[in-house]
Amino acid sequence: MNFKEIQKLLEKDLELVKKEITKSLDSPISFIGKVASYLIESGGKRFRPIVLILSSKAFGYKEERMYVIASTLEFIHTATLLHDDVVDYAELRRGQPTANILWGNEATVLVGDFLLARSFLKLVQDGDLEVLDCVSRATTKMAEGELLQLLKTNEPKTTEDEYLEIVKSKTAVLISAASEIGAILGNGTEEEKKKMRDFGMNLGIAFQIVDDTIDYLVEDQTMGKTRGQDYFDGKVTLPFIYAYKNSDDKNKTFLEELFLKEEKDKEDFERLFVYLKKMNAFDYSFNFAKSYVEKAKENITFLKEPFKNYLNILAEYTLERTI
Amino acid sequence: MNFKEIQKLLEKDLELVKKEITKSLDSPISFIGKVASYLIESGGKRFRPIVLILSSKAFGYKEERMYVIASTLEFIHTATLLHDDVVDYAELRRGQPTANILWGNEATVLVGDFLLARSFLKLVQDGDLEVLDCVSRATTKMAEGELLQLLKTNEPKTTEDEYLEIVKSKTAVLISAASEIGAILGNGTEEEKKKMRDFGMNLGIAFQIVDDTIDYLVEDQTMGKTRGQDYFDGKVTLPFIYAYKNSDDKNKTFLEELFLKEEKDKEDFERLFVYLKKMNAFDYSFNFAKSYVEKAKENITFLKEPFKNYLNILAEYTLERTI
Repeated sequence: MNFKEIQKLLEKDLELVKKEITKSLDSPISFIGKVASYLIESGGKRFRPIVLILSSKAFGYKEERMYVIASTLEFIHTATLLHDDVVDYAELRRGQPTANILWGNEATVLVGDFLLARSFLKLVQDGDLEVLDCVSRATTKMAEGELLQLLKTNEPKTTEDEYLEIVKSKTAVLISAASEIGAILGNGTEEEKKKMRDFGMNLGIAFQIVDDTIDYLVEDQTMGKTRGQDYFDGKVTLPFIYAYKNSDDKNKTFLEELFLKEEKDKEDFERLFVYLKKMNAFDYSFNFAKSYVEKAKENITFLKEPFKNYLNILAEYTLERTI
Repeated sequence: MNFKEIQKLLEKDLELVKKEITKSLDSPISFIGKVASYLIESGGKRFRPIVLILSSKAFGYKEERMYVIASTLEFIHTATLLHDDVVDYAELRRGQPTANILWGNEATVLVGDFLLARSFLKLVQDGDLEVLDCVSRATTKMAEGELLQLLKTNEPKTTEDEYLEIVKSKTAVLISAASEIGAILGNGTEEEKKKMRDFGMNLGIAFQIVDDTIDYLVEDQTMGKTRGQDYFDGKVTLPFIYAYKNSDDKNKTFLEELFLKEEKDKEDFERLFVYLKKMNAFDYSFNFAKSYVEKAKENITFLKEPFKNYLNILAEYTLERTI
């Protein structure tokens, strides 16, 4: 069984999530629906809703509320994508022109704000303070993570700890919230909630490390990503950090200069790539991610089948995306 | 008694609001505190906290919680200012360079996101679902208002109704929320809550109409605003709408052309100004604002002194800002 089959298995559930999304985009300003649905319906994997639904079901929870909450996580995720694209001056996402290219930075920022505000309104109307606490903590942390990443742009001396902090806060906390919410909805014990929170966090860390590593390795047509995008954007990620740490002073200088070049071209990237490969930086990164997948799987050994198996498949999936 | 004296009267209360603000800016990312406090401490009037505090006291409420909630409204207001400045390409606010000029659009968007998320987290931790509902409704509406304003940029045919919708949602709803929260905290009846909500709404409408009208009349050094800024930004406001509606076809064309000119200069603005003045558009706008101040005062006739008087002074203050 693989990720696609899980998507298939949850087809009806994801249909209900989509219904909630459509309902929430209803606004007298029809432009909002246009921009938001452009992104929300353009082939997202619904990773966060899937984590939330599987986790809820693992705790025996079946109420419709789970789809409402799942839809708010997809909204929050979408809001951060919109703001990210403005921050990164991105032109393509999932192979399509980004919202900021189509409608301008201004509208993109404001539609992101709307989605964020709308998510909170939905959660407030749902009325579960524990869920609200979990999500608003995650959202606050995400903004911190994005800022930390921005501050560390063009900083070749970024450490592994700093990188992990960015990865945790910009990506993993929302997946962690998705996972914990299942335990909250299903009345898990405090210990079970913690385990699900940790599962989501470890899963999210692996997810982002793999994302950052394959950025060096392949063009991703479906994601509309250029190979080496992070390098061109000045984003320091794990392969670079590892190679830098394990280089002598001469090579450290070589890496710094290459990373801080004003006009970077494909050849610069190839030089960096060859060096990182020689240093086994990609193997290191994948193994690092793999260790987090193992931790994630450890976290949920207490769950019953078949949901333990499904969640393990999600965890494995983060690594399979390498191909 | 005037607004300054009310600020003086509430000095200790506002000190407690400021304490809450400082506490909430505490983040491992010290940059956030730097950007946010630059704006929050640079001479805002604390209008929303003042409305909330006076309204709470009018209902006999005295608990410290009111300062926590007041601080979140100031945060939300600040977040929208940050995002507005990015949307408007603004360079000056309150006579100082804007955050986007000092730290770039990226950081400005993200610090705004942080403030928004942090506000919700504080309100969730405060734990009052009625307050949360009130604030998250307002925040959603605000994003809609900003978007509507953006969509109506360079639209000389914007109607008075459309303009009022923008004014209500981008400005008045948050003041309305501030006013209603006093009644919520002080256990007012549903009818009293509605009256306070209406008071804030009418007050907020007057506030914004006056703001838009004086934009045509005076440079505002303290606000760092150029005379005619809205005209140069393509923002259609009440004086223009009134003059346009009451013009014959020839003058309508004159107004449209003047408004849609690609390169607007000071002389274009003066021509527009002279025409609007001849049409009594400024008198009309001030009288329009005044009618909302009267409505606001009507809404709170039921309150006891001295708070009724204080809130009436706030209402009058929106008009006094003309000088």
